Amino acid sequence: MKNNIVDLQDKLQALLHAQRDNFIQGKVADYIPALASVQPDLAGICVATIDGKTVGAGDYQRPFSIQSISKVFGLVMAMNRVGDALWQRVKMEPSGQPFNSIIQLEWEKGIPRNPVINAGALLVSDVLTSHFSASKLAFLSFVRKLANNETIRVDKQVYLSELSHGNRNAALAYLMKSFGNIEAEIPAVLSHYFTQCAVAMSCQQLAQSLLFLAFKGVDPSSKSIICSPKDAHRVNAILSTSGMYDQSGEFAFSVGLPAKSGVGGGLIAIVPNYGVICTWSPPLNSFGNSVVGMNLVAGIAEELGLSIYH
Amino acid sequence: MKNNIVDLQDKLQALLHAQRDNFIQGKVADYIPALASVQPDLAGICVATIDGKTVGAGDYQRPFSIQSISKVFGLVMAMNRVGDALWQRVKMEPSGQPFNSIIQLEWEKGIPRNPVINAGALLVSDVLTSHFSASKLAFLSFVRKLANNETIRVDKQVYLSELSHGNRNAALAYLMKSFGNIEAEIPAVLSHYFTQCAVAMSCQQLAQSLLFLAFKGVDPSSKSIICSPKDAHRVNAILSTSGMYDQSGEFAFSVGLPAKSGVGGGLIAIVPNYGVICTWSPPLNSFGNSVVGMNLVAGIAEELGLSIYH
Amino acid sequence: MKNNIVDLQDKLQALLHAQRDNFIQGKVADYIPALASVQPDLAGICVATIDGKTVGAGDYQRPFSIQSISKVFGLVMAMNRVGDALWQRVKMEPSGQPFNSIIQLEWEKGIPRNPVINAGALLVSDVLTSHFSASKLAFLSFVRKLANNETIRVDKQVYLSELSHGNRNAALAYLMKSFGNIEAEIPAVLSHYFTQCAVAMSCQQLAQSLLFLAFKGVDPSSKSIICSPKDAHRVNAILSTSGMYDQSGEFAFSVGLPAKSGVGGGLIAIVPNYGVICTWSPPLNSFGNSVVGMNLVAGIAEELGLSIYH
Amino acid sequence: MKNNIVDLQDKLQALLHAQRDNFIQGKVADYIPALASVQPDLAGICVATIDGKTVGAGDYQRPFSIQSISKVFGLVMAMNRVGDALWQRVKMEPSGQPFNSIIQLEWEKGIPRNPVINAGALLVSDVLTSHFSASKLAFLSFVRKLANNETIRVDKQVYLSELSHGNRNAALAYLMKSFGNIEAEIPAVLSHYFTQCAVAMSCQQLAQSLLFLAFKGVDPSSKSIICSPKDAHRVNAILSTSGMYDQSGEFAFSVGLPAKSGVGGGLIAIVPNYGVICTWSPPLNSFGNSVVGMNLVAGIAEELGLSIYH
Repeated sequence: MKNNIVDLQDKLQALLHAQRDNFIQGKVADYIPALASVQPDLAGICVATIDGKTVGAGDYQRPFSIQSISKVFGLVMAMNRVGDALWQRVKMEPSGQPFNSIIQLEWEKGIPRNPVINAGALLVSDVLTSHFSASKLAFLSFVRKLANNETIRVDKQVYLSELSHGNRNAALAYLMKSFGNIEAEIPAVLSHYFTQCAVAMSCQQLAQSLLFLAFKGVDPSSKSIICSPKDAHRVNAILSTSGMYDQSGEFAFSVGLPAKSGVGGGLIAIVPNYGVICTWSPPLNSFGNSVVGMNLVAGIAEELGLSIYH
Repeated sequence: MKNNIVDLQDKLQALLHAQRDNFIQGKVADYIPALASVQPDLAGICVATIDGKTVGAGDYQRPFSIQSISKVFGLVMAMNRVGDALWQRVKMEPSGQPFNSIIQLEWEKGIPRNPVINAGALLVSDVLTSHFSASKLAFLSFVRKLANNETIRVDKQVYLSELSHGNRNAALAYLMKSFGNIEAEIPAVLSHYFTQCAVAMSCQQLAQSLLFLAFKGVDPSSKSIICSPKDAHRVNAILSTSGMYDQSGEFAFSVGLPAKSGVGGGLIAIVPNYGVICTWSPPLNSFGNSVVGMNLVAGIAEELGLSIYH
Repeated sequence: MKNNIVDLQDKLQALLHAQRDNFIQGKVADYIPALASVQPDLAGICVATIDGKTVGAGDYQRPFSIQSISKVFGLVMAMNRVGDALWQRVKMEPSGQPFNSIIQLEWEKGIPRNPVINAGALLVSDVLTSHFSASKLAFLSFVRKLANNETIRVDKQVYLSELSHGNRNAALAYLMKSFGNIEAEIPAVLSHYFTQCAVAMSCQQLAQSLLFLAFKGVDPSSKSIICSPKDAHRVNAILSTSGMYDQSGEFAFSVGLPAKSGVGGGLIAIVPNYGVICTWSPPLNSFGNSVVGMNLVAGIAEELGLSIYH
Repeated sequence: MKNNIVDLQDKLQALLHAQRDNFIQGKVADYIPALASVQPDLAGICVATIDGKTVGAGDYQRPFSIQSISKVFGLVMAMNRVGDALWQRVKMEPSGQPFNSIIQLEWEKGIPRNPVINAGALLVSDVLTSHFSASKLAFLSFVRKLANNETIRVDKQVYLSELSHGNRNAALAYLMKSFGNIEAEIPAVLSHYFTQCAVAMSCQQLAQSLLFLAFKGVDPSSKSIICSPKDAHRVNAILSTSGMYDQSGEFAFSVGLPAKSGVGGGLIAIVPNYGVICTWSPPLNSFGNSVVGMNLVAGIAEELGLSIYH
């Protein structure tokens, strides 16, 4: 599993190069203008390891809209804040449904299947909104601390765009509230949710900021405890069974790493005891996952033998 | 992760002893008399490792009805026989539904979500029935070879009992056939399916027979190749996301191992590069998983640090 | 079918008397305090005929919250206002689901199954909100004109109570909006909807105000045209297949009249070419229909041979 | 509503003529060869009245496969045989789902929504199979008696064709059996069901045989009691809310008569106190209803003012 930096950089470059014809296979998210206007052939990959190395290729230092990858940060914050009480309000099961489905939420009486589908992330946003006096700032501070970078910011245009196209998420939130499973006011919950989705980060920043999940909850550079070993385990488990929307099973089957994608084209994969891979390429497949991103992670996992299933 | 045999045996005994009050928390499967009559406080645990050690405690040498654990064997046989063509007829996604749900099968036009829910296992049974001239014998031979034990047999009483209570499985099979996704005659498919479910094996036999999944497809004792490394990986991935029915996410979250349960009370967990754990205790929880079995696997995984998610 | 007034009054009294022990079989709607506090043993029945007679018994002149009966008035207003364009945005099929289900709305991409389930009535409210400069006033004026009674008003307490418990209806509205099937702002739509639900009317006022549906769209007393004969037919058809929520089939089966119920305990039944029956008794069955009200309508329909199905 | 025979015949001819261009709008049922080979431009219409007149146009005397229209005969037989006990095993609610949906059957634990969707008709077939020593003969005798025609027979080719394409109906039947709601053996139930579907009758025979439903249960020509007035009412109610599959609401909305269609292209409509209309034209719309047949019934109902909703 060990590789020296030069080797790894060559591999990333080669993998990226091999994907150059695949950008046209997906479709850039177009539900909001701010995402639809992203250049489709931008692409980057970065690997950060727990022993302090960071290697990248392509546009790996260019910030993009992290979108649903923000669900990982939000989840860790909520777990830290309310502890096991969280799991009374959200389950940890794969959904077997599209990420924004309202059907299962109705069946299960307002309890989302897991915290990384939209309903679950809205619930987590409610926890943060209710338990922090300024949850958006707290979120940004948390991410900045993890990435050790104070310049990370919210893309205001994306935020406003999301807000004005947020009717389905509003429907999910009101349905949960009708079951008594939302405490804060819905506009505040949505505002928090769209804020965290609109955070812009680069592959490098994302990879570095999530290393604690590969290192039993500890930030390997600062040695500070970000979450308990148990909670790091839990997050990785949830990402393994549910992180890639309704393609999670296929991703486990063919790649074998805890991962989370976002409709901005980002994709992070945790390699326990090794590091974090982050890729970015905007065109998405029908499940909402980055086509090239999935190929890149599959490629590097294959080459380095990183899967957790063998 | 390393332990000497004596230590491990002590641990297994202690874990088993600690569960003695928990048998009453579940309910023995009672949909057929042959299972309902099993003594509820029988329990065993066995750990087989890839370096050839086998350690057990309790009733770990007593055969029980393997039921859905047979789906693992059937799946490997079908993968070997038809290769990737299998994945045109069954997906590898968690279902988000009870194991015997017919709803999702209708939505997805007769394509089962994965091969370890009932619909998927019936499809696998169709593959075996269609591609082997004597699929039941072939199944039994495969299992006997893996367990290196020619005495393994089908419990006729269980088989007949299943057959006469198999209406829901018949419904699943006919529905798939109506979508053109079953090739053989339904009675033959059901007969194969109930035969493999009715195989009786002990914890020790099951643990030893599945070691190849922890060893990249190779039987560590005979060194024979049971399946490709890729397919061993795939089976482990499927068991991780879907092996514990609609409690798979929770099992990943709290234990962190590829696993498969059966309503006979058996439970197997694969530990890549280490070995296989098999437990047996008949009383089931509401998801159809053995209450004590889950506790035992959780206990040993915790003690030995076996989870794949950290 | 013909009866003189004295006979009919005796019949109504007798039917009402016979129900005196049945109030305890249902449960007064308790989702808002304003409804929960209604006295459960109040009950009234009124029959208004197209030849100008009005006969009642019990509390038939006491106003109650008309709730979903308002959907009939709203529907007629919207049909008059936008014509057949309405049927591009809402279907006219029974739902086969509870009245406030969100599942079918998702399946059918934001097109409600019919205008008398909640989703459909919210859509109608959107039409009224969008096409009238003051839709609440317009609604009230329409109802007052039909009932020939300027004192009919909105129960402010019920309105406010509904508004603060309206999360599920908000979810339905936002989901439709996410599919592009709501034009106005959701808060305005909800405000209109809860206003019309909170109108208070007596059995007598309701029976008289709906006579046009039994008389091909014409108000028999004033001779003014309220809607086209075709639209009167359509409303009666919708009420026959869908007016009694998920008990519509049973009501057709056992009573046989176009009808609409409300959770305030009201129930109206249209008898084409004869008149309108309105009953009121707050305790509801599990479908949200008045227990005693259904018995009363069944009784009078049986006695007078009013069913449309023979 | 009264018309002399010559007038009526002219009207039927004119209506039929006006439809001559509409045959291409639908698609002849092609799930079995025996139906797929029917000539698409055959068409007939017949009106039989309770006062003994029978008027037809086009191919109204040519037998066709009655298919689901047989559900009406079967239902009346079962109601007569087991009485109200029938309604413990099947409901009378519209389904809000396609006619052959298995989803709702799962939700409602094996209790079909109504007796005129496939699941419900299979349940009725089980009742007939279980309660008659020779249910197929009994069915044929019943229909022959009603039509006063001993030549009516089962189309063997259609029967065999249905049988070999009956997997979805088998799935429905086995699912009901798994819930304990089927008493006979499934093959016997299916054999009965496909037999009654394969009966061939002409428009004239169908119209005459169903007159009892327009005449409170009494055969107007023989004066024999076919069913109770209450049961005639119930059948008409069920046909009004559920007879036209998932287009029942629209048919009520635009035509307004209790009706039942079959995928053979037949359509019967009951006019209480007047008579029965039967049409035949094989091409079907997406709901499984005859395109031209619906137009013909709509036309005659409009011209004669037959709707029950005004």
